[in-house]
Amino acid sequence: MKQFVTFVLAAAAFVHAQDAEPPVNIGYIVFPSFEALDVFGPLDPLNMLSMSVPLNLSIIAGSLDPVNTRPVSMATPSFFGESIVPSHTFADPPKNLDVLIVPGGLGTRAPIEQLQPAIDFIKTQYPDLKYLISVCTGATLLARAGVLDGRRATSNKAAWAFVKSTGPNVEWVPQARWVVDGNIWTTSGVAAGIDGIFAWIGHVWGEDTSLRIANLIEYERHTDPSWDPFAIIWNTTGTASAPAASAKLLPVIEI
Amino acid sequence: MKQFVTFVLAAAAFVHAQDAEPPVNIGYIVFPSFEALDVFGPLDPLNMLSMSVPLNLSIIAGSLDPVNTRPVSMATPSFFGESIVPSHTFADPPKNLDVLIVPGGLGTRAPIEQLQPAIDFIKTQYPDLKYLISVCTGATLLARAGVLDGRRATSNKAAWAFVKSTGPNVEWVPQARWVVDGNIWTTSGVAAGIDGIFAWIGHVWGEDTSLRIANLIEYERHTDPSWDPFAIIWNTTGTASAPAASAKLLPVIEI
Repeated sequence: MKQFVTFVLAAAAFVHAQDAEPPVNIGYIVFPSFEALDVFGPLDPLNMLSMSVPLNLSIIAGSLDPVNTRPVSMATPSFFGESIVPSHTFADPPKNLDVLIVPGGLGTRAPIEQLQPAIDFIKTQYPDLKYLISVCTGATLLARAGVLDGRRATSNKAAWAFVKSTGPNVEWVPQARWVVDGNIWTTSGVAAGIDGIFAWIGHVWGEDTSLRIANLIEYERHTDPSWDPFAIIWNTTGTASAPAASAKLLPVIEI
Repeated sequence: MKQFVTFVLAAAAFVHAQDAEPPVNIGYIVFPSFEALDVFGPLDPLNMLSMSVPLNLSIIAGSLDPVNTRPVSMATPSFFGESIVPSHTFADPPKNLDVLIVPGGLGTRAPIEQLQPAIDFIKTQYPDLKYLISVCTGATLLARAGVLDGRRATSNKAAWAFVKSTGPNVEWVPQARWVVDGNIWTTSGVAAGIDGIFAWIGHVWGEDTSLRIANLIEYERHTDPSWDPFAIIWNTTGTASAPAASAKLLPVIEI
């Protein structure tokens, strides 16, 4: 443990927050059929960061029951999914959240009444947040909360038609790994959340801290927010051939 | 849902297993202070795959209590971690496992008596497995189970000295994103598990299936198992300058 304490002190001394008052209390929304990597992709670097700077995590859901990634009310040939344990509920949320992170996944296609508590929570919390971050189709919950109206945002390119339908007043960016508009960071599909969170960590705590953590977890970052080959693959820019795009789109209509 | 059923049938029809009898029952070991991305990086693509081919997942731990990522018995300035819910225990494991996946993380540095049940489980299960896969320092549990003796394997490059100490009879490969020796796949640190699982999915169900899922989750794969810039950064090859390496190594001594 001695080595680790040395690390904590050394790393803490190394981190220079870019914010005068960097965020401390981070909340992560989860719901049935959330996309696993939308949650744990960004959380892994934040877990690392929390060893050297003070960060508190709340996992917020409709109830305190474990929440599973398994597709709900649809047939699959498998019994395959993972459950995460919430620490708080929308009805009894943590106090003084600085950051709220919203994942996507098949669960964002659930009936609106099932999603309304999460949508209302985002709407209620946003005015007091330092940062609001979405991953993948989590942006559709932000859009339905109205907080993206008149703003630039992005989301999963394979689900583009669904995404746009949830925010007619949002300036959806069809080709972007992530988009920053004010204090709202929206990232593209699933794995894009990892690049987005590293960019955000760099923005708040400095690029050196981000690079250090990326090297720790052996992750090669995409550092250009306009890098997005998936915009072409899923034809959100209208430049891919329709047949090719539709053939690839089929499997992700529900994402 | 109709769209989704269409997807399942279409995708299922599209998947051509390379194995005559592809694996169905997958077990994932978890322990306190596991690395979140070591588990959910590979599981996210497998979650996707499970929508179109039959796969069953068991999360196996010392008990059925939720298992947290938070560093155990070491001081951090934070209260930050996520809990996953096991479905089985080492004492009462699932029947007929085809694949066992072992993550790494700070928890692999726990006292040996705490790790012994996982190590014994790996040793007992291995003879009946089709595949044994490790991510990051999960390879140290395989090494301590003796199943890597005389084999080529890799692991987290930042923890290389620790890794080598756990398997004196293992042919550790100092520069590799992942290594395949027989039916044992070992991947490098954390994020390398994502590239490793995509390569494995390609091996079992075909590269087209792997590419389809990677495009779905907007992940740019590293498809060359010898791609490993982190071997240089962490100086496992002895080619980086010692000061530079040691300065970077400090924060990950305990990973």
